[in-house]
Amino acid sequence: MKRIALGLEYDGRSFHGWQRQKGLPSVQMVLEEALFRIAGHSVNVRCAGRTDAGVHALGQVVHFDTLANRPETAWVRGVNSFLPASVAVRWSREVSDDFHARYAAKSRRYRYLLLNRGERSGLWAGRAGWFHRPLCLEVMQKAAEFLVGEHNFSAFRAAECQAKNPVRNLTHAEIGQEGDFFFFDFEANAFLQHMVRNMVGSLVYVGKGAWMPEYLHELLLAGDRTLAAPTFPPDGLYFLGPSYDSALQLPMAALSDAHTLPGGLSKLR
Amino acid sequence: MKRIALGLEYDGRSFHGWQRQKGLPSVQMVLEEALFRIAGHSVNVRCAGRTDAGVHALGQVVHFDTLANRPETAWVRGVNSFLPASVAVRWSREVSDDFHARYAAKSRRYRYLLLNRGERSGLWAGRAGWFHRPLCLEVMQKAAEFLVGEHNFSAFRAAECQAKNPVRNLTHAEIGQEGDFFFFDFEANAFLQHMVRNMVGSLVYVGKGAWMPEYLHELLLAGDRTLAAPTFPPDGLYFLGPSYDSALQLPMAALSDAHTLPGGLSKLR
Repeated sequence: MKRIALGLEYDGRSFHGWQRQKGLPSVQMVLEEALFRIAGHSVNVRCAGRTDAGVHALGQVVHFDTLANRPETAWVRGVNSFLPASVAVRWSREVSDDFHARYAAKSRRYRYLLLNRGERSGLWAGRAGWFHRPLCLEVMQKAAEFLVGEHNFSAFRAAECQAKNPVRNLTHAEIGQEGDFFFFDFEANAFLQHMVRNMVGSLVYVGKGAWMPEYLHELLLAGDRTLAAPTFPPDGLYFLGPSYDSALQLPMAALSDAHTLPGGLSKLR
Repeated sequence: MKRIALGLEYDGRSFHGWQRQKGLPSVQMVLEEALFRIAGHSVNVRCAGRTDAGVHALGQVVHFDTLANRPETAWVRGVNSFLPASVAVRWSREVSDDFHARYAAKSRRYRYLLLNRGERSGLWAGRAGWFHRPLCLEVMQKAAEFLVGEHNFSAFRAAECQAKNPVRNLTHAEIGQEGDFFFFDFEANAFLQHMVRNMVGSLVYVGKGAWMPEYLHELLLAGDRTLAAPTFPPDGLYFLGPSYDSALQLPMAALSDAHTLPGGLSKLR
């Protein structure tokens, strides 16, 4: 029995999220079906971060166990030949049998892409959020500083979030601008459900002048989801991927891929 | 009777090209249907550059005549509300009745985006070409210089191309690299059918080391399509748009939008 880790990229528009759901296309389903073709037996994958419907990934990491003896390229190009065009394996590595894509992850990174202009986009439909009124970068940056640190993020948590503990350590929050795009980069030990989309929603409220930056501090303290802004749509959300102990020597393809999005590598490297 | 010009952005994957074809979705069809809803009468649009199936546009320009009296926003946001998500009107202007989106265009600009890495992309499927072996930027840049100027471009012309004259004036050819992306920017008075995709195909042959850069000069002289490289797929091709006499004062939204693609504004400004 071998344990294999894969790096994965996908366009979330084609799927009802990561997780298998009866009768609905999911990334997990198409991946397990493609792996079955290469492994010759059914395979169960576990991922570093379950993405919601419509959310994209540049550096999802999964692991699975297999009895099959295949070269690394078979787990990449072989599997890719059985995957739909909107999903691609980027790399594969054999890992020790105590590696776990989710539990071994020390942190996760997300980027939210927001197109800020009067008219919606045809080319970026489903791949970027859109806000049509002017946004001030500086006040959003100021507001984001209040979010950094270890906090109870209940104010930014979906009602249906199943995490037992709402405390997360947000180690990085950066907002930048590139042409008509704003990008919001976050890194945390882990994220609550909809946490990025909810933080972006509230940061946009600050950016459009509805709230003072300090209000985000109050939101955190109050811990009341109903006081925060509405959830932003999944369109602009990209899971850049988890980070692991460097001793594991897993490829960091996702970070070098981040420059394919507006915002480039930002300060994530 | 008024003549209106519109700037248009679209994702070519959803359409069998610009032009109306019986029973197949086309950009022209969905646009004319949306305009009908706003104008209250049927409308016939003419475009600056007919794009093939799968080819995208950042700055397509069209014109049409209407009896309807509508504010400019109706031709933008009103029409957008009747268009599919993959098409968006960026701007509208009333123009004089002798303006013609195609015949008034002094030049056209295209960008071809090519992802150059070992594995295909899930996120850029249909929106960038892909080549999996190493490419040398420098020799492709050298080869591109042979293409600049007024030439008979028969070697880079589709068999079914209907232009009477194969001579075109290529005023700009620039190749750049941004991370895993190569971008190929071209400007010409006009382009033959598949001309950009054929030039990119031959430039890639040079870049991978199959041909010397000088061979492109010989190709031009020979004027024989069968000697040149295969046509590259439409996936990576973006029509950045036409340019008009500045006295017409039409918005240049497409150029400022080019930075939303890898390659940014390059030297097109």
